[in-house]
Amino acid sequence: MPTPGSTDRPPDRRIGLAVVGAGYWGPNLVRNAQQTAALHLHWLCDLDEQRSRKVLGEYSTVRATTSFEEVLADRRVQAVAIATPAAAHHRLARAALEAGKHVLVEKPITTTAEEAADLVALAEERGLVLMCDHTFCYTPVVRRIRELVHGGEIGDIQFFDSVRINLGLVQPDVDVLWDLAPHDLSILDFVLPPGVEPVGVSAQAADPIGAGRACVAYLTLRLSNGALAHCHVNWLSPTKVRTTLIGGSRRTLVWDDLNPQARLAVHDRGVDLTPPDELTDAIRHRALISYRVGDMVAPALVEQEALRNVMAEFAAAIGEGRAPLTDGRAGLRVLRLLHAASRSLELGGATVPVGDEPKDRQPFAEERATVR
Amino acid sequence: MPTPGSTDRPPDRRIGLAVVGAGYWGPNLVRNAQQTAALHLHWLCDLDEQRSRKVLGEYSTVRATTSFEEVLADRRVQAVAIATPAAAHHRLARAALEAGKHVLVEKPITTTAEEAADLVALAEERGLVLMCDHTFCYTPVVRRIRELVHGGEIGDIQFFDSVRINLGLVQPDVDVLWDLAPHDLSILDFVLPPGVEPVGVSAQAADPIGAGRACVAYLTLRLSNGALAHCHVNWLSPTKVRTTLIGGSRRTLVWDDLNPQARLAVHDRGVDLTPPDELTDAIRHRALISYRVGDMVAPALVEQEALRNVMAEFAAAIGEGRAPLTDGRAGLRVLRLLHAASRSLELGGATVPVGDEPKDRQPFAEERATVR
Amino acid sequence: MPTPGSTDRPPDRRIGLAVVGAGYWGPNLVRNAQQTAALHLHWLCDLDEQRSRKVLGEYSTVRATTSFEEVLADRRVQAVAIATPAAAHHRLARAALEAGKHVLVEKPITTTAEEAADLVALAEERGLVLMCDHTFCYTPVVRRIRELVHGGEIGDIQFFDSVRINLGLVQPDVDVLWDLAPHDLSILDFVLPPGVEPVGVSAQAADPIGAGRACVAYLTLRLSNGALAHCHVNWLSPTKVRTTLIGGSRRTLVWDDLNPQARLAVHDRGVDLTPPDELTDAIRHRALISYRVGDMVAPALVEQEALRNVMAEFAAAIGEGRAPLTDGRAGLRVLRLLHAASRSLELGGATVPVGDEPKDRQPFAEERATVR
Amino acid sequence: MPTPGSTDRPPDRRIGLAVVGAGYWGPNLVRNAQQTAALHLHWLCDLDEQRSRKVLGEYSTVRATTSFEEVLADRRVQAVAIATPAAAHHRLARAALEAGKHVLVEKPITTTAEEAADLVALAEERGLVLMCDHTFCYTPVVRRIRELVHGGEIGDIQFFDSVRINLGLVQPDVDVLWDLAPHDLSILDFVLPPGVEPVGVSAQAADPIGAGRACVAYLTLRLSNGALAHCHVNWLSPTKVRTTLIGGSRRTLVWDDLNPQARLAVHDRGVDLTPPDELTDAIRHRALISYRVGDMVAPALVEQEALRNVMAEFAAAIGEGRAPLTDGRAGLRVLRLLHAASRSLELGGATVPVGDEPKDRQPFAEERATVR
Repeated sequence: MPTPGSTDRPPDRRIGLAVVGAGYWGPNLVRNAQQTAALHLHWLCDLDEQRSRKVLGEYSTVRATTSFEEVLADRRVQAVAIATPAAAHHRLARAALEAGKHVLVEKPITTTAEEAADLVALAEERGLVLMCDHTFCYTPVVRRIRELVHGGEIGDIQFFDSVRINLGLVQPDVDVLWDLAPHDLSILDFVLPPGVEPVGVSAQAADPIGAGRACVAYLTLRLSNGALAHCHVNWLSPTKVRTTLIGGSRRTLVWDDLNPQARLAVHDRGVDLTPPDELTDAIRHRALISYRVGDMVAPALVEQEALRNVMAEFAAAIGEGRAPLTDGRAGLRVLRLLHAASRSLELGGATVPVGDEPKDRQPFAEERATVR
Repeated sequence: MPTPGSTDRPPDRRIGLAVVGAGYWGPNLVRNAQQTAALHLHWLCDLDEQRSRKVLGEYSTVRATTSFEEVLADRRVQAVAIATPAAAHHRLARAALEAGKHVLVEKPITTTAEEAADLVALAEERGLVLMCDHTFCYTPVVRRIRELVHGGEIGDIQFFDSVRINLGLVQPDVDVLWDLAPHDLSILDFVLPPGVEPVGVSAQAADPIGAGRACVAYLTLRLSNGALAHCHVNWLSPTKVRTTLIGGSRRTLVWDDLNPQARLAVHDRGVDLTPPDELTDAIRHRALISYRVGDMVAPALVEQEALRNVMAEFAAAIGEGRAPLTDGRAGLRVLRLLHAASRSLELGGATVPVGDEPKDRQPFAEERATVR
Repeated sequence: MPTPGSTDRPPDRRIGLAVVGAGYWGPNLVRNAQQTAALHLHWLCDLDEQRSRKVLGEYSTVRATTSFEEVLADRRVQAVAIATPAAAHHRLARAALEAGKHVLVEKPITTTAEEAADLVALAEERGLVLMCDHTFCYTPVVRRIRELVHGGEIGDIQFFDSVRINLGLVQPDVDVLWDLAPHDLSILDFVLPPGVEPVGVSAQAADPIGAGRACVAYLTLRLSNGALAHCHVNWLSPTKVRTTLIGGSRRTLVWDDLNPQARLAVHDRGVDLTPPDELTDAIRHRALISYRVGDMVAPALVEQEALRNVMAEFAAAIGEGRAPLTDGRAGLRVLRLLHAASRSLELGGATVPVGDEPKDRQPFAEERATVR
Repeated sequence: MPTPGSTDRPPDRRIGLAVVGAGYWGPNLVRNAQQTAALHLHWLCDLDEQRSRKVLGEYSTVRATTSFEEVLADRRVQAVAIATPAAAHHRLARAALEAGKHVLVEKPITTTAEEAADLVALAEERGLVLMCDHTFCYTPVVRRIRELVHGGEIGDIQFFDSVRINLGLVQPDVDVLWDLAPHDLSILDFVLPPGVEPVGVSAQAADPIGAGRACVAYLTLRLSNGALAHCHVNWLSPTKVRTTLIGGSRRTLVWDDLNPQARLAVHDRGVDLTPPDELTDAIRHRALISYRVGDMVAPALVEQEALRNVMAEFAAAIGEGRAPLTDGRAGLRVLRLLHAASRSLELGGATVPVGDEPKDRQPFAEERATVR
């Protein structure tokens, strides 16, 4: 039996980890961290020690603590995964970075863009990994979608439509937009091809049950190429739907996450236009439209737990001294979209421009090499 | 063989009908009119006689004509069904009403609200039936939905969400909003309970293929009770989706029109709130929310062709001298929503208030009795 | 209006047709015959003239008659389509063939193999087309399946599994096997590659409602290559299922006829074995098995009404003087399988060998050229 | 942190458990045992210690061993869960029972009926719990089905049809019948109402890939009330299907295990017959059949891991000194059906009668009270 601290054991080359937060998502981090060979989970930290003990169960050698200071003081701990309510993210992540720990943080990265930018700057300054747990980006299906889009197989993006509805838990501190839309926005951020980005956000929402916060919301993003991205998030739907359409000039993708047998369908179906300059005036009106009605291909995808891949990417980014696939900047971009959506709601649905830091995406590549 | 005009036949008590327009929808009117016992189809009128002949086939005793005047002059013709492009609706319907004919007209009823109001006034003045072919309102499933909503089984309307997407024909003269949203808006108009009506419309649309008109559109309607109604219409989707959710405080409906085995599902699932005055302050924050996770019932529905029911209702309204279920006023209400949506598009998505004729719905009931 | 017999009309080059039987299927034959340019429908013949009139409707120029002799005596009638109860098929088809008419007959072709063989012989002797309406063989999906199987893309047939269940009409004169299995057996007959044929039939059935005939049945056919074909037919299922799996060594097909958006799926998934002679003894046990988990392709299929294609094939076979795709011999082969199944039922499920006319399939090709 | 063996801990009232077998299913037993409050997992025993260590992971306080003797000698161990290949079940279970341990054993309980009967007798003699892990019987859906059937809501059982197909692992030592059909047979055994039991078994199977054992099989069971039960098990299907229909005279159940949103559907649809003695002769032929086309209800079901319930039932049966829901006798009954199926295969599909121990089911109730 592997007993911690036994003397006949080679030095542990794994990355020492602590998980902070034993609430809804923390147990998943604990379980996946334990199954990741490159990580060594030492602590589960939560203000409620009973909750931590319950998460760890009775057979675990991982230690529970209520003291974040104790965790930061443990020199074996090189990295911290934070799964507390969002309001605490900035404080905890900052403390961890200041203590020289790499940080994995749940979405949304923080509650304000300033806080997120502060963390990004601090992590870059210290050469530490700051990763945002955009879990869906680590599913095999989203990775494949990104390859298909970035590889040009889809052609130009024509529309993006996501529905994420369910009889969901009405959250005590965030509305449905902040609860669910981060998933869709992080996926959108992850799969959009270079050069196409959201430029305006419009949102509509309602609280038809009197919950004190929006339970149904629609989000429309105008992309820089003129296309629309749209998300429907809803806590009140009796049926669960998780479907994303990504229309392209060459192929259109249908991702139905609840259909494991054909989770992703690549359709060679669409409407084509002959460019007007290849037509005479006479036939311009109708002849230029044609319809492709081709085959559908459902590519084989492996079944993997996304969070396992998150852990592996976190460990790999630390080990290789590079930015992770979904770094703090990605978290910041998603946060800006959420804030724009909230502002649009305040303005009754008017379109709100997105941020004003045009260089957000460009320096990304170089920084990857200099993270540490 | 029943030969028209044979002398040993009792006088024809059926309502004489002419169909105008042999394009996309006309053939369906012709077929269903022939199968309606209370109607006697005499004419199919289209400027293109070959098209009419092709629609009628080689075995029909119905006559083709290119002359609308000939149709109006035929005293056997008591009613006219108009399935031409929308631009011609007002001229043809007005002429028919002036000639004393009852009128069934395709959606949208006309192109402007003034034209529609003109037809409504003329029909009421002459005591003639003016019916708008809101076909979906005559499906068994929509009738059942209306019963469930109006009968109170759903409780208060909390949201209405409709998706109507397909690889559809890009129309030469209308955008996707005017092509597809009339279906959803007429259904919404039909099923909303008395006292709840759209008060504001916001729309977003895009033409990502350069077709010269919107091919993807999202429509958000604010209802008078604060709830949202939302429609997604899209000509570019590779897969067909026709799903409508109607959330209520007691039950939520899921109508999936492509699932004939459970077209309508009535879910006893939802989020309930205990009214705040029944709670102490201390527990107000969380305790007031509870979740119902009850059974789902898919009521048995007969399979009927909606257009057959349209024809039957048209004939019944004529025979009984009453307003049909979807009369000219319903057509006018839907038209106002479409115009508000178009205006919102021009304004970049801003919410546009709906009409200002507050008496639109109230006089409906009395008029029914006095149509003729 | 096109009046039959008008003098200014070119001679009718269409094949004159009469439909016999105005019951369940007859109206479909009437409708599709009218829509087939190469056919000219003259008569609908049924002992119940009111039923014929109702089928034709009030706008038709087709004539109703109760006299089959009148039909056969009409020199314009070159072909007869028979949709009566099966017991009358042989008598009517024989009379028609003797009168020099081509014959299309519903399934099952006759009630006994002797009667079917008699019709086949008579038609071949007279050089007339004898076609069995194996409707499903004329759907785009079954045609595509046949191409995929015959073209070798599926590899060797490994299994065939068909489920055809529904809350169906309990027939007054046939059991569920004779009512529904002819569809599956005619499809099997149509798609099996040359050289593979059923050699034994086993059946199990039950009448759990006391209807006096089997309402649930399972049919297992042993194919000449050792594979199994299996059909589940059931009148008592509350849900409709129409799914056929065709397993092959290279690809496996899933045909779900109730899923119009992906009616046919071609799966590159399966179990492969390395031939034993390529293995050493040591690893023979496990290493020889490997799994393919490749993509799924849903080929684009046009939507066509199968019966329209049946009519077109009937007309084409007559016009070209050739055997139709599903000729009398195909009808006879299916009939032999049904009789073997019935015998197996009598024997408590024992496997019954199929017929003993080994040359059934071989002469097929040559005869095609000499039908007339 | 709860350290095993710490002195300030109250005496452990939990039932000490060892899991034997760290192969395919063992890890699931380990995980669920750890999550069951009434159990205390002490050992994981497997001949391959590395495999055990891998299953336990690096954070576990559970001990790995290769010595079954060590396990049996541990007085803390009161119960053993056996998940080895079936050939070892009898030897291990007998040893455990002889050592006074309660036993949970995977399906099939043993390889021969004699061995199973031996274990049943030994357990009863010693007053020990012998439970067979018929996992599916512990799903909420199967429990609900049993309630519906036993409670009479379904009426008389008219048919049972189960499809369990997938691209499954071709097992090295058992055919598809022994691999998959135990699931269906144990479910059938569990849900059949008292007085209805299988009396004959017929099976057909094929090995179309040359694997050396059947990969596709069909099993037909004649029930004592005349109805059929049928199972289709298949390792070669590219798509996964797990659907069971249970037809009844009052309601029919459709259990689609891959549809979590409506896993169970209770259909008020079927065919009714008026009893003949209520009819005159004249109308007996047709009038006695009528169709119910009523609503479908999908009852709300909680989501629970079945194996957790298995563990809880095992612990409860031990604690309460009673037979578990799926005791050794249930395992024996299922085993007899499997042997009858294998014999039918040898006989080319002939129907084989089931066992001859008519008292199998009757003494069940009394014994429950006397197990210990």
